[in-house]
Amino acid sequence: MEIKDRRTIRRYKAEDVPQTLIDRLLGEAARAATMGNMQLYSVVVTRDEELKRGLAPLHFNQPMVMAAPVVLTFCADFHRFTQWCQQRDADAGYDNFLSFINAASDTLLFTENFTTLAEAEGLGTCYLGTTVYQPQGIIDLLKLPKLVFPIATITVGWPDEMPEQTDRLPLESFVHHDTYHDYSAEAIDRFYTLKESLPENQHFVEVNQKQNLAQVFTDCRYTRRDNEALSEGMMNALKKQGFLK
Amino acid sequence: MEIKDRRTIRRYKAEDVPQTLIDRLLGEAARAATMGNMQLYSVVVTRDEELKRGLAPLHFNQPMVMAAPVVLTFCADFHRFTQWCQQRDADAGYDNFLSFINAASDTLLFTENFTTLAEAEGLGTCYLGTTVYQPQGIIDLLKLPKLVFPIATITVGWPDEMPEQTDRLPLESFVHHDTYHDYSAEAIDRFYTLKESLPENQHFVEVNQKQNLAQVFTDCRYTRRDNEALSEGMMNALKKQGFLK
Repeated sequence: MEIKDRRTIRRYKAEDVPQTLIDRLLGEAARAATMGNMQLYSVVVTRDEELKRGLAPLHFNQPMVMAAPVVLTFCADFHRFTQWCQQRDADAGYDNFLSFINAASDTLLFTENFTTLAEAEGLGTCYLGTTVYQPQGIIDLLKLPKLVFPIATITVGWPDEMPEQTDRLPLESFVHHDTYHDYSAEAIDRFYTLKESLPENQHFVEVNQKQNLAQVFTDCRYTRRDNEALSEGMMNALKKQGFLK
Repeated sequence: MEIKDRRTIRRYKAEDVPQTLIDRLLGEAARAATMGNMQLYSVVVTRDEELKRGLAPLHFNQPMVMAAPVVLTFCADFHRFTQWCQQRDADAGYDNFLSFINAASDTLLFTENFTTLAEAEGLGTCYLGTTVYQPQGIIDLLKLPKLVFPIATITVGWPDEMPEQTDRLPLESFVHHDTYHDYSAEAIDRFYTLKESLPENQHFVEVNQKQNLAQVFTDCRYTRRDNEALSEGMMNALKKQGFLK
Protein backbone atom coordinates (compact mmCIF):
# COMPACT_ATOMS: atom_id res chain seq x y z
CA MET A 1 0.00 0.00 0.00
CA GLU A 2 1.48 3.35 -1.01
CA ILE A 3 1.05 6.44 1.15
CA LYS A 4 -1.57 7.94 -1.16
CA ASP A 5 -3.65 4.74 -0.97
CA ARG A 6 -3.29 4.19 2.76
CA ARG A 7 -6.14 3.38 5.11
CA THR A 8 -6.14 2.26 8.69
CA ILE A 9 -6.53 -1.51 9.04
CA ARG A 10 -8.31 -2.75 12.17
CA ARG A 11 -8.98 -6.40 11.21
CA TYR A 12 -6.13 -8.83 10.76
CA LYS A 13 -5.69 -12.39 9.53
CA ALA A 14 -4.65 -14.97 12.13
CA GLU A 15 -1.32 -15.35 10.32
CA ASP A 16 1.72 -14.26 12.30
CA VAL A 17 4.14 -11.50 11.29
CA PRO A 18 7.72 -12.79 11.57
CA GLN A 19 9.98 -10.86 13.92
CA THR A 20 12.69 -10.91 11.23
CA LEU A 21 10.38 -8.80 9.05
CA ILE A 22 9.53 -6.40 11.89
CA ASP A 23 13.25 -6.08 12.67
CA ARG A 24 14.17 -5.28 9.08
CA LEU A 25 11.47 -2.62 8.87
CA LEU A 26 12.45 -1.07 12.21
CA GLY A 27 16.07 -0.97 11.07
CA GLU A 28 15.12 0.82 7.85
CA ALA A 29 12.73 3.15 9.70
CA ALA A 30 15.63 4.31 11.85
CA ARG A 31 16.90 6.18 8.78
CA ALA A 32 14.46 8.94 9.78
CA ALA A 33 15.99 12.29 10.66
CA THR A 34 16.96 12.43 14.34
CA MET A 35 18.15 15.28 16.61
CA GLY A 36 21.94 15.33 16.49
CA ASN A 37 21.77 11.67 15.44
CA MET A 38 20.89 10.76 19.03
CA GLN A 39 18.00 8.39 18.09
CA LEU A 40 15.89 9.33 21.06
CA TYR A 41 13.46 6.42 20.90
CA SER A 42 12.84 2.83 21.83
CA VAL A 43 10.12 0.44 20.69
CA VAL A 44 8.59 -2.26 22.84
CA VAL A 45 7.32 -5.27 20.86
CA THR A 46 4.32 -7.00 22.43
CA ARG A 47 3.23 -10.45 21.22
CA ASP A 48 2.47 -12.14 24.52
CA GLU A 49 -1.29 -12.61 25.15
CA GLU A 50 -1.00 -11.72 28.81
CA LEU A 51 0.77 -8.44 28.11
CA LYS A 52 -1.73 -7.62 25.39
CA ARG A 53 -4.52 -8.21 27.89
CA GLY A 54 -2.76 -5.69 30.12
CA LEU A 55 -2.41 -3.14 27.32
CA ALA A 56 -5.98 -3.45 26.03
CA PRO A 57 -7.79 -1.49 28.79
CA LEU A 58 -5.05 1.17 28.66
CA HIS A 59 -6.21 1.67 25.06
CA PHE A 60 -9.88 1.72 26.11
CA ASN A 61 -10.28 -1.88 24.93
CA GLN A 62 -9.98 -1.03 21.27
CA PRO A 63 -10.18 -4.55 19.77
CA MET A 64 -7.06 -4.13 17.59
CA VAL A 65 -4.78 -4.66 20.61
CA MET A 66 -5.98 -8.23 21.10
CA ALA A 67 -6.65 -8.90 17.40
CA ALA A 68 -3.23 -7.92 16.00
CA PRO A 69 -0.35 -10.40 16.18
CA VAL A 70 2.05 -7.59 17.04
CA VAL A 71 1.61 -4.42 19.08
CA LEU A 72 4.42 -1.87 18.97
CA THR A 73 4.71 0.83 21.62
CA PHE A 74 7.01 3.60 20.44
CA CYS A 75 8.60 5.53 23.29
CA ALA A 76 10.51 8.78 23.57
CA ASP A 77 13.77 7.67 25.17
CA PHE A 78 16.46 9.89 26.68
CA HIS A 79 17.39 7.15 29.15
CA ARG A 80 19.80 5.25 26.89
CA PHE A 81 21.63 8.40 25.80
CA THR A 82 21.78 9.64 29.40
CA GLN A 83 23.21 6.35 30.60
CA TRP A 84 25.91 6.60 27.93
CA CYS A 85 26.74 10.14 29.11
CA GLN A 86 26.88 9.03 32.73
CA GLN A 87 29.27 6.22 31.85
CA ARG A 88 31.49 8.85 30.17
CA ASP A 89 31.51 11.36 33.03
CA ALA A 90 29.38 13.77 30.98
CA ASP A 91 26.66 15.92 32.61
CA ALA A 92 23.47 14.85 30.78
CA GLY A 93 20.92 17.65 31.16
CA TYR A 94 17.96 16.01 29.44
CA ASP A 95 15.46 15.87 32.29
CA ASN A 96 13.45 18.79 30.95
CA PHE A 97 10.50 19.62 28.72
CA LEU A 98 12.46 20.57 25.59
CA SER A 99 14.31 17.26 25.73
CA PHE A 100 10.96 15.45 25.98
CA ILE A 101 9.73 17.28 22.87
CA ASN A 102 12.96 16.45 21.03
CA ALA A 103 12.64 12.78 21.92
CA ALA A 104 8.91 12.67 21.11
CA SER A 105 9.65 14.22 17.70
CA ASP A 106 12.36 11.66 16.93
CA THR A 107 9.94 8.94 17.99
CA LEU A 108 7.07 10.06 15.77
CA LEU A 109 9.25 10.42 12.66
CA PHE A 110 10.55 6.91 13.30
CA THR A 111 7.02 5.62 13.92
CA GLU A 112 5.68 7.06 10.67
CA ASN A 113 8.59 5.64 8.70
CA PHE A 114 7.88 2.23 10.17
CA THR A 115 4.21 2.57 9.22
CA THR A 116 5.03 3.48 5.63
CA LEU A 117 7.50 0.62 5.28
CA ALA A 118 5.12 -1.90 6.86
CA GLU A 119 2.30 -0.87 4.56
CA ALA A 120 4.56 -1.05 1.51
CA GLU A 121 5.21 -4.65 2.59
CA GLY A 122 1.48 -5.42 2.53
CA LEU A 123 0.94 -5.18 6.28
CA GLY A 124 -1.95 -3.25 7.80
CA THR A 125 -1.53 -0.88 10.73
CA CYS A 126 -3.66 1.06 13.16
CA TYR A 127 -2.30 4.06 15.05
CA LEU A 128 -3.62 4.21 18.61
CA GLY A 129 -3.78 7.83 19.72
CA THR A 130 -4.80 6.56 23.15
CA THR A 131 -1.14 5.98 24.05
CA VAL A 132 -0.87 9.40 25.72
CA TYR A 133 -4.25 9.09 27.49
CA GLN A 134 -3.19 6.78 30.30
CA PRO A 135 0.59 6.82 29.95
CA GLN A 136 1.27 5.88 33.56
CA GLY A 137 -0.48 2.53 33.09
CA ILE A 138 1.65 1.78 30.02
CA ILE A 139 4.82 2.91 31.82
CA ASP A 140 4.09 0.52 34.68
CA LEU A 141 3.10 -2.43 32.50
CA LEU A 142 6.04 -2.14 30.09
CA LYS A 143 8.45 -1.21 32.91
CA LEU A 144 9.66 1.99 31.28
CA PRO A 145 12.44 3.61 33.32
CA LYS A 146 12.83 7.34 33.93
CA LEU A 147 13.31 9.45 30.78
CA VAL A 148 11.29 6.96 28.74
CA PHE A 149 7.70 7.86 27.80
CA PRO A 150 5.15 6.10 25.55
CA ILE A 151 4.18 8.27 22.58
CA ALA A 152 2.55 6.10 19.93
CA THR A 153 1.20 2.58 19.54
CA ILE A 154 0.84 0.75 16.24
CA THR A 155 -0.99 -2.53 15.88
CA VAL A 156 0.39 -4.59 13.00
CA GLY A 157 -0.93 -7.57 11.06
CA TRP A 158 -1.89 -8.90 7.65
CA PRO A 159 -5.05 -7.07 6.52
CA ASP A 160 -8.36 -8.88 6.70
CA GLU A 161 -10.35 -5.94 5.36
CA MET A 162 -9.98 -3.17 2.79
CA PRO A 163 -12.13 -0.30 4.00
CA GLU A 164 -12.88 2.81 1.94
CA GLN A 165 -10.45 5.67 2.40
CA THR A 166 -11.74 8.25 4.84
CA ASP A 167 -12.37 11.87 3.90
CA ARG A 168 -9.72 14.57 4.12
CA LEU A 169 -10.03 18.35 4.24
CA PRO A 170 -9.25 20.25 1.03
CA LEU A 171 -5.57 21.12 0.63
CA GLU A 172 -6.21 24.86 0.78
CA SER A 173 -7.58 24.46 4.31
CA PHE A 174 -4.21 23.45 5.75
CA VAL A 175 -1.65 25.04 3.41
CA HIS A 176 -0.73 28.69 3.98
CA HIS A 177 1.54 30.84 1.85
CA ASP A 178 4.05 33.31 3.35
CA THR A 179 2.17 33.67 6.62
CA TYR A 180 -0.81 32.01 8.28
CA HIS A 181 -4.02 33.31 6.75
CA ASP A 182 -6.90 33.21 9.12
CA TYR A 183 -10.16 31.64 8.01
CA SER A 184 -13.35 33.44 7.10
CA ALA A 185 -16.55 31.89 8.46
CA GLU A 186 -17.48 31.07 4.89
CA ALA A 187 -14.20 29.24 4.28
CA ILE A 188 -14.67 27.09 7.40
CA ASP A 189 -18.19 26.20 6.27
CA ARG A 190 -16.87 25.20 2.87
CA PHE A 191 -13.94 23.13 4.21
CA TYR A 192 -16.17 21.06 6.48
CA THR A 193 -19.07 20.58 4.03
CA LEU A 194 -17.91 17.19 2.81
CA LYS A 195 -17.30 15.85 6.32
CA GLU A 196 -20.70 17.08 7.52
CA SER A 197 -22.49 15.58 4.55
CA LEU A 198 -21.19 12.01 4.93
CA PRO A 199 -23.95 9.52 5.82
CA GLU A 200 -21.92 7.94 8.65
CA ASN A 201 -21.35 11.35 10.22
CA GLN A 202 -25.01 12.28 9.90
CA HIS A 203 -25.75 8.96 11.59
CA PHE A 204 -23.43 9.90 14.51
CA VAL A 205 -25.28 13.18 14.94
CA GLU A 206 -28.59 11.34 15.03
CA VAL A 207 -27.67 8.53 17.45
CA ASN A 208 -26.01 11.00 19.81
CA GLN A 209 -29.00 13.32 19.57
CA LYS A 210 -26.83 16.33 18.75
CA GLN A 211 -27.52 19.30 16.50
CA ASN A 212 -24.46 18.82 14.34
CA LEU A 213 -21.20 16.92 13.87
CA ALA A 214 -19.02 19.42 15.74
CA GLN A 215 -21.09 18.77 18.86
CA VAL A 216 -20.47 15.03 18.50
CA PHE A 217 -16.75 15.83 18.79
CA THR A 218 -17.01 18.33 21.64
CA ASP A 219 -19.78 16.68 23.70
CA CYS A 220 -19.14 12.97 23.10
CA ARG A 221 -15.80 12.05 21.56
CA TYR A 222 -13.26 14.60 22.81
CA THR A 223 -14.80 16.58 25.63
CA ARG A 224 -13.27 19.50 27.50
CA ARG A 225 -13.66 17.64 30.75
CA ASP A 226 -11.85 14.50 29.53
CA ASN A 227 -9.11 16.52 27.84
CA GLU A 228 -8.41 18.50 30.98
CA ALA A 229 -8.32 15.42 33.21
CA LEU A 230 -6.07 13.57 30.74
CA SER A 231 -3.79 16.63 30.41
CA GLU A 232 -3.24 16.56 34.13
CA GLY A 233 -2.55 12.82 34.08
CA MET A 234 -0.05 13.24 31.29
CA MET A 235 1.74 16.10 33.05
CA ASN A 236 1.95 14.00 36.21
CA ALA A 237 3.37 11.07 34.27
CA LEU A 238 5.90 13.34 32.55
CA LYS A 239 7.01 14.63 35.92
CA LYS A 240 7.27 11.12 37.33
CA GLN A 241 9.35 9.99 34.35
CA GLY A 242 11.73 12.86 35.05
CA PHE A 243 10.98 15.09 32.05
CA LEU A 244 9.79 18.15 33.99
CA LYS A 245 12.37 17.97 36.78
CA MET B 1 15.44 8.02 -2.60
CA GLU B 2 13.88 5.22 -0.60
CA ILE B 3 13.63 5.36 3.19
CA LYS B 4 16.46 2.87 3.67
CA ASP B 5 18.74 4.99 1.47
CA ARG B 6 17.83 8.35 2.91
CA ARG B 7 20.25 11.01 4.00
CA THR B 8 19.73 14.60 4.95
CA ILE B 9 20.42 16.99 2.07
CA ARG B 10 21.73 20.45 2.99
CA ARG B 11 22.89 21.72 -0.43
CA TYR B 12 20.41 22.41 -3.18
CA LYS B 13 20.55 23.29 -6.86
CA ALA B 14 19.33 26.77 -7.82
CA GLU B 15 16.41 25.15 -9.69
CA ASP B 16 12.97 25.91 -8.25
CA VAL B 17 10.52 23.33 -6.91
CA PRO B 18 7.08 23.93 -8.47
CA GLN B 19 4.29 24.62 -6.01
CA THR B 20 2.10 22.15 -7.94
CA LEU B 21 4.53 19.40 -6.94
CA ILE B 22 4.66 20.53 -3.31
CA ASP B 23 0.85 20.65 -3.30
CA ARG B 24 0.48 17.14 -4.67
CA LEU B 25 2.92 15.75 -2.11
CA LEU B 26 1.23 17.59 0.78
CA GLY B 27 -2.13 16.24 -0.38
CA GLU B 28 -0.81 12.68 -0.42
CA ALA B 29 0.99 13.17 2.91
CA ALA B 30 -2.34 14.04 4.49
CA ARG B 31 -3.23 10.34 4.20
CA ALA B 32 -1.28 9.89 7.47
CA ALA B 33 -3.26 8.64 10.44
CA THR B 34 -4.87 11.54 12.31
CA MET B 35 -6.71 11.74 15.68
CA GLY B 36 -10.40 11.25 15.01
CA ASN B 37 -9.69 12.40 11.44
CA MET B 38 -9.38 15.97 12.74
CA GLN B 39 -6.15 16.75 10.77
CA LEU B 40 -4.70 18.92 13.50
CA TYR B 41 -2.00 20.61 11.43
CA SER B 42 -1.21 23.40 9.03
CA VAL B 43 1.86 24.03 6.94
CA VAL B 44 3.25 27.44 6.07
CA VAL B 45 5.13 27.58 2.75
CA THR B 46 7.96 30.11 2.67
CA ARG B 47 9.55 31.10 -0.65
CA ASP B 48 9.87 34.86 -0.16
CA GLU B 49 13.49 35.98 0.42
CA GLU B 50 12.49 38.53 3.04
CA LEU B 51 10.58 35.96 5.09
CA LYS B 52 13.43 33.47 4.77
CA ARG B 53 15.78 36.15 6.09
CA GLY B 54 13.42 36.46 9.05
CA LEU B 55 13.33 32.71 9.64
CA ALA B 56 17.09 32.14 9.32
CA PRO B 57 18.19 33.53 12.72
CA LEU B 58 15.28 31.71 14.39
CA HIS B 59 17.01 28.55 13.12
CA PHE B 60 20.42 29.75 14.35
CA ASN B 61 21.36 30.77 10.80
CA GLN B 62 21.61 27.23 9.52
CA PRO B 63 22.40 27.94 5.84
CA MET B 64 19.68 25.61 4.50
CA VAL B 65 16.98 28.18 5.24
CA MET B 66 18.39 30.67 2.75
CA ALA B 67 19.76 28.03 0.36
CA ALA B 68 16.59 25.99 -0.16
CA PRO B 69 13.97 27.23 -2.64
CA VAL B 70 11.17 26.17 -0.27
CA VAL B 71 10.96 26.17 3.52
CA LEU B 72 7.97 24.41 5.09
CA THR B 73 6.97 25.11 8.67
CA PHE B 74 4.67 22.37 9.95
CA CYS B 75 2.42 23.54 12.79
CA ALA B 76 0.20 21.82 15.31
CA ASP B 77 -3.19 23.45 14.64
CA PHE B 78 -6.29 23.22 16.82
CA HIS B 79 -7.38 26.69 15.70
CA ARG B 80 -9.15 25.62 12.50
CA PHE B 81 -11.06 22.82 14.22
CA THR B 82 -11.95 25.09 17.13
CA GLN B 83 -13.26 27.77 14.77
CA TRP B 84 -15.46 25.16 13.09
CA CYS B 85 -16.80 24.12 16.52
CA GLN B 86 -17.46 27.72 17.48
CA GLN B 87 -19.41 28.32 14.27
CA ARG B 88 -21.53 25.26 15.18
CA ASP B 89 -22.29 26.26 18.76
CA ALA B 90 -20.09 23.43 20.06
CA ASP B 91 -17.92 23.88 23.17
CA ALA B 92 -14.37 23.25 21.88
CA GLY B 93 -12.19 22.27 24.86
CA TYR B 94 -8.84 22.01 23.11
CA ASP B 95 -6.86 24.71 24.94
CA ASN B 96 -4.94 22.18 27.01
CA PHE B 97 -1.73 20.15 27.02
CA LEU B 98 -3.20 16.85 25.82
CA SER B 99 -4.70 18.60 22.82
CA PHE B 100 -1.31 20.12 22.04
CA ILE B 101 0.28 16.66 22.14
CA ASN B 102 -2.49 15.27 19.93
CA ALA B 103 -1.98 18.06 17.39
CA ALA B 104 1.82 17.80 17.53
CA SER B 105 1.54 14.04 16.88
CA ASP B 106 -0.72 14.54 13.87
CA THR B 107 1.72 17.15 12.59
CA LEU B 108 4.81 14.96 12.85
CA LEU B 109 3.19 11.97 11.13
CA PHE B 110 2.12 14.31 8.32
CA THR B 111 5.62 15.86 8.19
CA GLU B 112 7.35 12.50 7.91
CA ASN B 113 4.97 11.36 5.18
CA PHE B 114 5.75 14.52 3.24
CA THR B 115 9.48 13.90 3.67
CA THR B 116 9.21 10.34 2.39
CA LEU B 117 7.13 11.37 -0.62
CA ALA B 118 9.42 14.30 -1.46
CA GLU B 119 12.50 12.09 -1.32
CA ALA B 120 10.83 9.44 -3.48
CA GLU B 121 10.33 12.25 -6.00
CA GLY B 122 14.07 12.97 -6.02
CA LEU B 123 13.92 16.01 -3.75
CA GLY B 124 16.30 16.50 -0.84
CA THR B 125 15.15 17.59 2.59
CA CYS B 126 16.63 18.74 5.86
CA TYR B 127 14.68 18.55 9.12
CA LEU B 128 15.35 21.54 11.36
CA GLY B 129 14.96 20.49 14.98
CA THR B 130 15.48 24.14 15.92
CA THR B 131 11.79 24.87 15.27
CA VAL B 132 10.91 24.36 18.95
CA TYR B 133 13.94 26.31 20.21
CA GLN B 134 12.63 29.80 19.59
CA PRO B 135 8.99 29.13 18.77
CA GLN B 136 7.78 32.58 19.78
CA GLY B 137 9.88 34.20 17.06
CA ILE B 138 8.41 31.87 14.43
CA ILE B 139 4.89 32.43 15.78
CA ASP B 140 5.32 36.19 15.44
CA LEU B 141 6.95 36.09 12.00
CA LEU B 142 4.46 33.65 10.45
CA LYS B 143 1.53 35.24 12.29
CA LEU B 144 0.33 32.03 13.89
CA PRO B 145 -2.91 32.56 15.82
CA LYS B 146 -3.74 30.99 19.17
CA LEU B 147 -3.88 27.17 19.18
CA VAL B 148 -1.31 27.03 16.38
CA PHE B 149 2.28 26.10 17.26
CA PRO B 150 5.35 25.44 15.06
CA ILE B 151 6.63 21.87 15.46
CA ALA B 152 8.88 21.01 12.53
CA THR B 153 10.60 22.76 9.64
CA ILE B 154 11.71 21.06 6.46
CA THR B 155 13.90 22.72 3.85
CA VAL B 156 13.24 21.33 0.38
CA GLY B 157 15.14 21.48 -2.90
CA TRP B 158 16.83 19.45 -5.62
CA PRO B 159 19.95 17.82 -4.15
CA ASP B 160 23.33 19.28 -4.99
CA GLU B 161 25.24 16.74 -2.89
CA MET B 162 25.06 13.06 -2.01
CA PRO B 163 26.69 12.68 1.40
CA GLU B 164 27.46 9.34 3.03
CA GLN B 165 24.74 7.92 5.21
CA THR B 166 25.34 8.66 8.87
CA ASP B 167 25.78 5.95 11.50
CA ARG B 168 22.87 4.40 13.40
CA LEU B 169 22.80 2.46 16.65
CA PRO B 170 22.41 -1.33 16.38
CA LEU B 171 18.79 -2.48 16.25
CA GLU B 172 19.04 -4.36 19.55
CA SER B 173 19.81 -1.07 21.33
CA PHE B 174 16.35 0.36 20.66
CA VAL B 175 14.08 -2.69 20.29
CA HIS B 176 12.74 -4.30 23.46
CA HIS B 177 10.68 -7.49 23.74
CA ASP B 178 7.74 -7.83 26.13
CA THR B 179 8.96 -5.12 28.49
CA TYR B 180 11.75 -2.55 28.52
CA HIS B 181 15.05 -4.23 29.35
CA ASP B 182 17.46 -1.92 31.02
CA TYR B 183 21.00 -1.69 29.71
CA SER B 184 24.12 -3.12 31.27
CA ALA B 185 27.15 -0.85 31.25
CA GLU B 186 28.78 -3.28 28.85
CA ALA B 187 25.83 -3.08 26.43
CA ILE B 188 25.97 0.73 26.39
CA ASP B 189 29.70 0.62 25.67
CA ARG B 190 29.08 -1.77 22.81
CA PHE B 191 26.16 0.19 21.28
CA TYR B 192 28.17 3.41 21.16
CA THR B 193 31.48 1.92 19.98
CA LEU B 194 30.88 2.65 16.30
CA LYS B 195 29.81 6.25 16.94
CA GLU B 196 32.79 6.91 19.18
CA SER B 197 35.23 5.41 16.68
CA LEU B 198 34.21 7.56 13.69
CA PRO B 199 37.01 9.94 12.59
CA GLU B 200 34.64 12.95 12.40
CA ASN B 201 33.49 12.33 15.98
CA GLN B 202 37.06 11.91 17.22
CA HIS B 203 37.78 15.21 15.48
CA PHE B 204 34.91 16.90 17.40
CA VAL B 205 36.36 15.62 20.67
CA GLU B 206 39.74 17.03 19.76
CA VAL B 207 38.70 20.49 18.54
CA ASN B 208 36.41 20.94 21.55
CA GLN B 209 39.17 19.74 23.88
CA LYS B 210 36.89 17.22 25.57
CA GLN B 211 37.68 13.80 26.99
CA ASN B 212 35.11 11.96 24.90
CA LEU B 213 32.18 12.29 22.50
CA ALA B 214 29.49 12.28 25.18
CA GLN B 215 31.01 15.43 26.66
CA VAL B 216 30.83 17.12 23.24
CA PHE B 217 27.07 16.57 23.42
CA THR B 218 26.58 17.59 27.05
CA ASP B 219 29.09 20.46 27.24
CA CYS B 220 28.93 21.94 23.73
CA ARG B 221 26.01 20.86 21.56
CA TYR B 222 23.06 20.25 23.90
CA THR B 223 23.88 21.65 27.31
CA ARG B 224 21.77 21.45 30.45
CA ARG B 225 21.77 25.22 30.69
CA ASP B 226 20.51 25.75 27.12
CA ASN B 227 17.93 22.96 27.43
CA GLU B 228 16.51 24.43 30.60
CA ALA B 229 16.33 27.96 29.21
CA LEU B 230 14.73 26.71 25.97
CA SER B 231 12.26 24.55 27.93
CA GLU B 232 11.08 27.63 29.76
CA GLY B 233 10.76 29.57 26.50
CA MET B 234 8.76 26.78 24.94
CA MET B 235 6.43 26.50 27.92
CA ASN B 236 5.86 30.26 27.82
CA ALA B 237 5.09 30.15 24.10
CA LEU B 238 2.70 27.20 24.64
CA LYS B 239 0.90 29.21 27.29
CA LYS B 240 0.72 32.28 25.08
CA GLN B 241 -0.67 30.20 22.21
CA GLY B 242 -3.40 29.00 24.54
CA PHE B 243 -2.34 25.37 24.95
CA LEU B 244 -1.81 25.41 28.72
CA LYS B 245 -4.78 27.59 29.64
